[in-house]
Amino acid sequence: MAVLTPQQDDFPRWYQDVLTKAKLAENGPARGTIVIRPNGYAVWERMQAEVDARIKTAGAQNAYFPLLIPMNFFAREAEHVEGFSPELAVVTHGGGKELSEPLAIRPTSETVIGEYMSKWVDSYRDLPLLLNQWANVVRWELRPRIFLRTTEFLWQEGHTAHAGESDARAYARRILHDVYEDFMRNVLAMPVIVGRKTVKERFAGAVNTMTCEAIMRDGKALQMGTSHELGQRFSRAFNITYSSADGSTELAWTTSWGASTRMLGGLIMCHGDDYGLVVPPALAPVQAVVVVVKDTDGSVTQAASAMADDLRRSGVRVKLDDNVASGFGWRATEWDLQGVPIRVEIGPRDVAENAAELYRRDTREKTKVALGAVVDEVQRLTTDIQSSMLAAATARRDAAISDCSTLDQARDVAQAGVARVPWAVVGASGEADLATGGLTVRCLQLGDGSLPQTDDDADALAYVARAY
Amino acid sequence: MAVLTPQQDDFPRWYQDVLTKAKLAENGPARGTIVIRPNGYAVWERMQAEVDARIKTAGAQNAYFPLLIPMNFFAREAEHVEGFSPELAVVTHGGGKELSEPLAIRPTSETVIGEYMSKWVDSYRDLPLLLNQWANVVRWELRPRIFLRTTEFLWQEGHTAHAGESDARAYARRILHDVYEDFMRNVLAMPVIVGRKTVKERFAGAVNTMTCEAIMRDGKALQMGTSHELGQRFSRAFNITYSSADGSTELAWTTSWGASTRMLGGLIMCHGDDYGLVVPPALAPVQAVVVVVKDTDGSVTQAASAMADDLRRSGVRVKLDDNVASGFGWRATEWDLQGVPIRVEIGPRDVAENAAELYRRDTREKTKVALGAVVDEVQRLTTDIQSSMLAAATARRDAAISDCSTLDQARDVAQAGVARVPWAVVGASGEADLATGGLTVRCLQLGDGSLPQTDDDADALAYVARAY
Repeated sequence: MAVLTPQQDDFPRWYQDVLTKAKLAENGPARGTIVIRPNGYAVWERMQAEVDARIKTAGAQNAYFPLLIPMNFFAREAEHVEGFSPELAVVTHGGGKELSEPLAIRPTSETVIGEYMSKWVDSYRDLPLLLNQWANVVRWELRPRIFLRTTEFLWQEGHTAHAGESDARAYARRILHDVYEDFMRNVLAMPVIVGRKTVKERFAGAVNTMTCEAIMRDGKALQMGTSHELGQRFSRAFNITYSSADGSTELAWTTSWGASTRMLGGLIMCHGDDYGLVVPPALAPVQAVVVVVKDTDGSVTQAASAMADDLRRSGVRVKLDDNVASGFGWRATEWDLQGVPIRVEIGPRDVAENAAELYRRDTREKTKVALGAVVDEVQRLTTDIQSSMLAAATARRDAAISDCSTLDQARDVAQAGVARVPWAVVGASGEADLATGGLTVRCLQLGDGSLPQTDDDADALAYVARAY
Repeated sequence: MAVLTPQQDDFPRWYQDVLTKAKLAENGPARGTIVIRPNGYAVWERMQAEVDARIKTAGAQNAYFPLLIPMNFFAREAEHVEGFSPELAVVTHGGGKELSEPLAIRPTSETVIGEYMSKWVDSYRDLPLLLNQWANVVRWELRPRIFLRTTEFLWQEGHTAHAGESDARAYARRILHDVYEDFMRNVLAMPVIVGRKTVKERFAGAVNTMTCEAIMRDGKALQMGTSHELGQRFSRAFNITYSSADGSTELAWTTSWGASTRMLGGLIMCHGDDYGLVVPPALAPVQAVVVVVKDTDGSVTQAASAMADDLRRSGVRVKLDDNVASGFGWRATEWDLQGVPIRVEIGPRDVAENAAELYRRDTREKTKVALGAVVDEVQRLTTDIQSSMLAAATARRDAAISDCSTLDQARDVAQAGVARVPWAVVGASGEADLATGGLTVRCLQLGDGSLPQTDDDADALAYVARAY
C-alpha cells in the first residue's frame, strides 16, 4: 500500500513520486521547463520571505532588470560569454518582425546590471551599490530534472559594486554566511558544507566562487547557493568606474550571488522519507494541521476549530482539516506526503477525554496531550523538530563523509558518498581524472571548516562526490 | 530652482522628470524594456504584498507556469491568437540550435494554464480551481512608455475554472471589487471607475472584460486592472472538462484577471505634484522619515534616533535620515521627490524646546508638536493623509468628468477630461468614430455605479476619454 517507491529501491523514482503525489511540480510543455504547483510554490514563497529578509538585513535593495539582453552584452566578458553562450535562448522575432539584433533571455544578469551600474556609479560615495532581484532565468538544459536542472528557474541574484577588493570580498562572504548558510542551516535544517569552488567549477567570469553544498539522502551532493567575487572583470567590461576621494578614476570591484528553486529539490532529497516530504517547522507554510478524525454531531469539529484558532493566535501557521467526508487514513497519508511538521488529531474519544493526539512528521511519533496543553506542546515541538531535523541531517551528512588519503580511495568512496581528501592529493589533474567517472570536487575547505583564501592552499581539503 | 518641469507646462515631461529624479525607473537596453530601480521597486513590493493578501483572502493559490509557450498553443483560441500574435516575442534558437517549434514568451498565460487545468480538473470536486501567478510577461510594444506601456512588465495573473457560469461570473466580480477596487481605493487612494468594457475594448478571448479605470491629473484615463469572464472558450480550446455530480461530462467556465507595474505609473500621475511623487501612507514603503535638520554635538541625532525607534515600535514604517553631511534643504527636496507621506524634522532648537516639526507631504503643511506627542500625531496623520488623498483625488476625478448628451459634446469634453455620455448615444459606430480622434470608451457603467450585465444595456453610461 506504499504511496511512493521506497527510497532504498529507487531513489530517483522516489523523488519523482514525491513531486507527483504531493503535487509539487511537473514538466512544462517546452523541454526542461516546469510548472510549480501551489503545494510547491507555497514552500518557495516561504523560502523567498526568509532569504529576502536576510538580504535586506545585509543592506541590499531589490530592483528589477530586463529579461531580454542584447547579444553583444555577453561578448564583453570573455569567460562569461564562453560559459553561457551554449545555454542561451535567443529571441530573433518580435512584433511580427525579425529583430536587427537578436536578444538573449537572461541566463543571469551580470551583463545588463553591469551596464546600469556604470551609469549609476560616479563617485566613491555611490559605493557600495548593493542590488538584488527576484527573477526567472533561462539556461538551455540538455538533461533536465525538476527543480534540480531546469531550462527556466526562479531565483534571486544579487549584484554589488564596491570601492575596494577587500570590501567586495567581505561582502561576498557576508552573503555566503549570513544569508545562505544561516538560512539553510536554521530554516531549511540543512547542514551545508561551505567552501571554495575549484578553478574548474567556478562561475564563468568569477575570480572566486564560494558555495553551500548539501548532501542528499542518497549520498549525492547538491549545490544550494553560490557567492562570487568577480574582481574587476565586469567593471572592466562595462566600465564601472568611480572617482575616489582623492579624485582618481578607479574600477569598481563587483560580486554576484544566487540561490534558486533548486533549493526545493534539495529540501525534498535531504529530509524526505518513504512517506513523502518532511518540511522543517521554521520553513513550513503550514506548521500544524488540526485534523478532525471523525465527527457525528459537530462537537469534534467545534473543538478542532477552536484549537486551530488558539494555535493561530499563538503565532503558529495552522490549518484546519475538517473534511470528514474523506477517510482519516487517506487524509493522514496526504498530510504525510506534504510533510506538515505537526498534526493535532482530534476524534470523538479525544473530545470525551479532553485530549488530542500530537503527531510529529519527522519521527512519526504520536503522544496524547490534554487539550489545554496543546498550544504549549505544539510550540515546544516546532523548536524540537527543527533542531532534531538538523541533527539528523547532520548525522546523515557526517556518516556519508569518509576521509581519504589517495585519489583511488576517494574515487571508491564517492561512488556512494562523499570523500574528503587533501586537495594536494587531487589537484587539477586528479580533478579531471575524477570527472571521467562522473565525480566532481564540490568544494575546498580548511580543516577548521573555514574557506581557503587561494586556489591552491596546501592545507585545503577537497569534498569529492557525485552531484545533482 | 524647480527640480521638475511643472505639470502645467508639460505633463509628459513632468512624468519623465519624476521617474528620473526620484530614481524610480529608466529605459532598458532593448526597446520598450525598463529597469525598475530600488525606489520604484520598493513601492511595487508594497503593491504586491497588499494585492497578494487580498488574492489569498479570495481563496486563490499562487503557482508558477513557464515563461516559454509553444506557438501552437495560441492558435487554439481564434480571438486570442488574433489579438496576441502581433505582440509576441519569439524564441527560435536554444542551446545553440534552431528549435523544431518556435516558443513564444508569454504575453499572458491563459493558454499554458488552460493546458494544465485540463490535466488537473477531473471531477466537479476539483472545482473551483483558483490559481494566481506573479510573473513577467512580454508584449512587443511600438510606442513604449515607462510603466504605462512596456515590452516587458511585471504583473499578477489570476486564472480560475468553475463548474458553472454563475460561479465564474461571481468570482470575476469578486476579484474586481474585493481585490482590485478595494486595493486601489483603500491603499492607493485612487477612486477608480469600475465598469464593463465595450466589445471593442475586450480582452482577446473574453466574453466580458471588467475594468478599474483611474483618472490622471491631466484628465487622461489609465486602465489599472481588469477581470475577465472567458466563458467556455478556453475550456473548449484546452479541453477543460469535469464530470458533474450526476456523471455527465461538462466544460468548465474560466476567468482571468490581472494588474501590473502599470499601477506605478497610475500612482505617480494620480497623486504626484510639482515636487514629485506623493505616496499614500497605506502604500508607502517608508511612511515617516525622521530627519535630523542639523546637529553639532550628537544630541539631535540621539533624539531623532530614539524617535525613529518609538515610531517603529508603534508599527510605523520609518526611516532615520541623520545624513547631516548633506544640507537639510537638499534632503527635504529628496524626500519630497520620493513622496514620503510624513517628515518628522528635528533640529537643535526643537530639541531645546522638546518639540519637532511635522510635515505632511500631501498638503506640504508643517506643524510643531511636542516630542511626546509625535507618535500619536504621526499615527493620526497616516489615517488623515490617506483619507485626504482619496478625497482630493475623488474631487479631481469628479471635476474632470462632464455629463454629455451628444457624441460631439463628448468629443469636445474628452479632449481634456472625461465625458460621461449615454452608451445609446455612442454605440459601436460612435465608438469607432471617437477612435479616429484618439478617444476611447473606457468603460460602461449604470447610473448607480453598478456594472451593466450585457453589452448593450440601454441605461449604460459610457466614460469617454483619452487614455494612456
